[in-house]
Amino acid sequence: MARNTQVPADHHAPPVTQTLARHVATHPSRGWSDAVEHEAHRTFLNWLGCAVGAAQHESVHAALGAVQMLQPAPQASVLGRAEQVDMAGAALINGISSHTFDFDDTHLKTIIHPAGPVASAVLALAEHRGLSGRAVIDALVLGIDVSCRVGNTMYPEHYDRGWHITGSTGTLGAAAGCARLLGLDEHKTAMALGIAASQPIGVREQFGTMTKPFHPGGAARAGLMSALLASQGYTASPRALEAPRGMIQTVSTKYAWNEITDELGQRFEISYNSYKPFACGIVIHPSIDACAQLRAQGVKPEEIERIELKVHSLVLELTGKKEPADGLSAKFSVYHGCACGLMFGKAGEEQYSDVIVNRPDMVALRRKVVATVDEHMAEASVDVTALLKDGRQVHVFVRHAIGSLENPMTDAMLESKFHDLSDPVIGKSRTNALIAACWKLAGTADVRTLTALARP
Amino acid sequence: MARNTQVPADHHAPPVTQTLARHVATHPSRGWSDAVEHEAHRTFLNWLGCAVGAAQHESVHAALGAVQMLQPAPQASVLGRAEQVDMAGAALINGISSHTFDFDDTHLKTIIHPAGPVASAVLALAEHRGLSGRAVIDALVLGIDVSCRVGNTMYPEHYDRGWHITGSTGTLGAAAGCARLLGLDEHKTAMALGIAASQPIGVREQFGTMTKPFHPGGAARAGLMSALLASQGYTASPRALEAPRGMIQTVSTKYAWNEITDELGQRFEISYNSYKPFACGIVIHPSIDACAQLRAQGVKPEEIERIELKVHSLVLELTGKKEPADGLSAKFSVYHGCACGLMFGKAGEEQYSDVIVNRPDMVALRRKVVATVDEHMAEASVDVTALLKDGRQVHVFVRHAIGSLENPMTDAMLESKFHDLSDPVIGKSRTNALIAACWKLAGTADVRTLTALARP
Repeated sequence: MARNTQVPADHHAPPVTQTLARHVATHPSRGWSDAVEHEAHRTFLNWLGCAVGAAQHESVHAALGAVQMLQPAPQASVLGRAEQVDMAGAALINGISSHTFDFDDTHLKTIIHPAGPVASAVLALAEHRGLSGRAVIDALVLGIDVSCRVGNTMYPEHYDRGWHITGSTGTLGAAAGCARLLGLDEHKTAMALGIAASQPIGVREQFGTMTKPFHPGGAARAGLMSALLASQGYTASPRALEAPRGMIQTVSTKYAWNEITDELGQRFEISYNSYKPFACGIVIHPSIDACAQLRAQGVKPEEIERIELKVHSLVLELTGKKEPADGLSAKFSVYHGCACGLMFGKAGEEQYSDVIVNRPDMVALRRKVVATVDEHMAEASVDVTALLKDGRQVHVFVRHAIGSLENPMTDAMLESKFHDLSDPVIGKSRTNALIAACWKLAGTADVRTLTALARP
Repeated sequence: MARNTQVPADHHAPPVTQTLARHVATHPSRGWSDAVEHEAHRTFLNWLGCAVGAAQHESVHAALGAVQMLQPAPQASVLGRAEQVDMAGAALINGISSHTFDFDDTHLKTIIHPAGPVASAVLALAEHRGLSGRAVIDALVLGIDVSCRVGNTMYPEHYDRGWHITGSTGTLGAAAGCARLLGLDEHKTAMALGIAASQPIGVREQFGTMTKPFHPGGAARAGLMSALLASQGYTASPRALEAPRGMIQTVSTKYAWNEITDELGQRFEISYNSYKPFACGIVIHPSIDACAQLRAQGVKPEEIERIELKVHSLVLELTGKKEPADGLSAKFSVYHGCACGLMFGKAGEEQYSDVIVNRPDMVALRRKVVATVDEHMAEASVDVTALLKDGRQVHVFVRHAIGSLENPMTDAMLESKFHDLSDPVIGKSRTNALIAACWKLAGTADVRTLTALARP
């Protein structure tokens, strides 16, 4: 009886589970540059704003309802709400809320949204234990380093196969961050990573449903529990990541082990994090930016005959929905994104409400958008031409959209985005205090002073 | 930029998520033969004995310790112990304990251990709600039908790739069983299956560590939570199983959709369940049976020069550990299994204690075993020859080992196995009462009368 897998197994893989465990357990606190330290605070702030902003979304109501069926102890906060649940439930729900608007961060090398799984797990555990902001920032940097390095190892094949790489690597990042917070030694940290390695979460078919944001939430929960299990002596394979029947070779046909080991402890993947100015998938951002630029140049919706986009192939693969029926599915429509740029000059959560998605003028406008794959177009770029009814053409080429690494949002822009999300939920004055608490997180003795501000 | 997956996606897959949801939501209670109904009771009894038997194992201590860090509400029993935890924690821990001794059931077409994920989830939920035994049996039959049919669809490629198929399909079975118990309609049942489809659990590298039994436990927990989420209105893709980027095509290169639809509602996969007479992986059972037969024929350990096995290739792939260091790793050693058969005529949990595994006479005996792959040998069979020091040869050919479908354990043998496991934990008289409660489960008004008996 012939039994073959599709790819020859790599039996000589380096011991990356152990290598990452040592990194997480032994790297010095704040052992990185000021730039990395600042990026960690930007990552945390951006994540928190997204979580608070979605606190009243139906996906959060439903998830909280399910968690409350377990009659959980009030260990940690549901961000943006008055309820407290056990820390694992809080990790789940905050992970869900932070990704519900598709407005969170992106590690551009892998399209991983790194903060959702890691920050949600780490903050819930730290809040329950009354740990310091310093410990949280350390755990965030190291946890994100783990998930994104594993992502680098497998990307793009792992993603192409169908995995939502945010959840599938996020369990590892959350386990790493929580192991660090718990002060686990190298061996127990390896066990935590090993337990997490059996729990990759998320397939891409779920995009456009509540189960997409479930992926970072589920990963946060699973990672936190993996660390708790390891702290109690639960065991896993010390080669759970790299062995031929370990996680990475099971869920990917690409495994570039050097992505885990290169410059480990010197280069931190959180440095490559970016933040979304628009509340949708990153691949649409150049198109929205370009359309907003057309609007700024005076192009009006009623003048438009046709909008022609030349895009990278991933844009249509991921966001090719021509006739989205509601806000959630509109997030996967480059056509709606362009209509938002042309009509409003922005694409925040408000522009993804069902009402706006179904407005007749928006439906008509997005039908004028024609997108074509251009083999030579980079993922970060787009070429847009507006053909107007009077025969004029207006052309915009975007090399790097706003929010990219090359053209990042400023701290002030992040604060403004935070206010847009958080003001309607907890009010402007609490939001101001919460933003201030985020910037000074590393110096905070007990993170409960911060989570207390995230209540309405 | 070329991006290809290894296999062309099947964009025309039939709507199996919906088909299974309808099956689970609408199939009549006890809509099957007496034989299926009896097999369901045997499956439940065998699973319960395994769970109670391992209640004091260090893997259960560690898992319970981690769950207790969440300060859970006392909703459901940890079987074989006095503690109660929330139903999701109970599903996790009972799933772990039931698979800890590798002594549970096996769906032989897929090597799935079906009860662990499904029964652990279903009983915890039913206990918390005070539901009937009838409802539990219905949920068990339908839940196992879902996980095993999905397993049939993907086996063997999915397993060969590295997935522990018990956990990867078990989440679906647990979600189905819990959806049935909650009385979810067809749509919400599809959502429960969809949420579960993003959470396949378990890679084979974990075999020999506590994370192997974590797989059915984690699957039970994830499936139960998927059903609770769906009951609260949480959504997933209605094509989460079959879509090109859905679960099945993401985790397998084989997808025989007819395995899900053929004779649905007429043939029940629980009919193909089997129970282990030996506390180790099923692939070793023919070898242990053969060696026990050699012993019964008078072959004594001290007379043996060499034992020659001709085995199926899977035996060495899965259980080729020559020098196991402890009881857990000995479960993956055909050599230790043979030594148990020769020395004791059995291989129960006692024979997998660290003490026996490291006994010098056992070490010496297993070193006399030589296993060779025979291309013509069936998975269920083995050909064993004992070469004795005096030059004699004794030959045994096992076509179907005891415990196989063709040579099943009797009800009395299952009760005896239950006693071996349970008597030391809850005492003989409680065990008798618990066994009686299992046989009459379908007529029990409230399953809490049964779970109350499973305490020491």
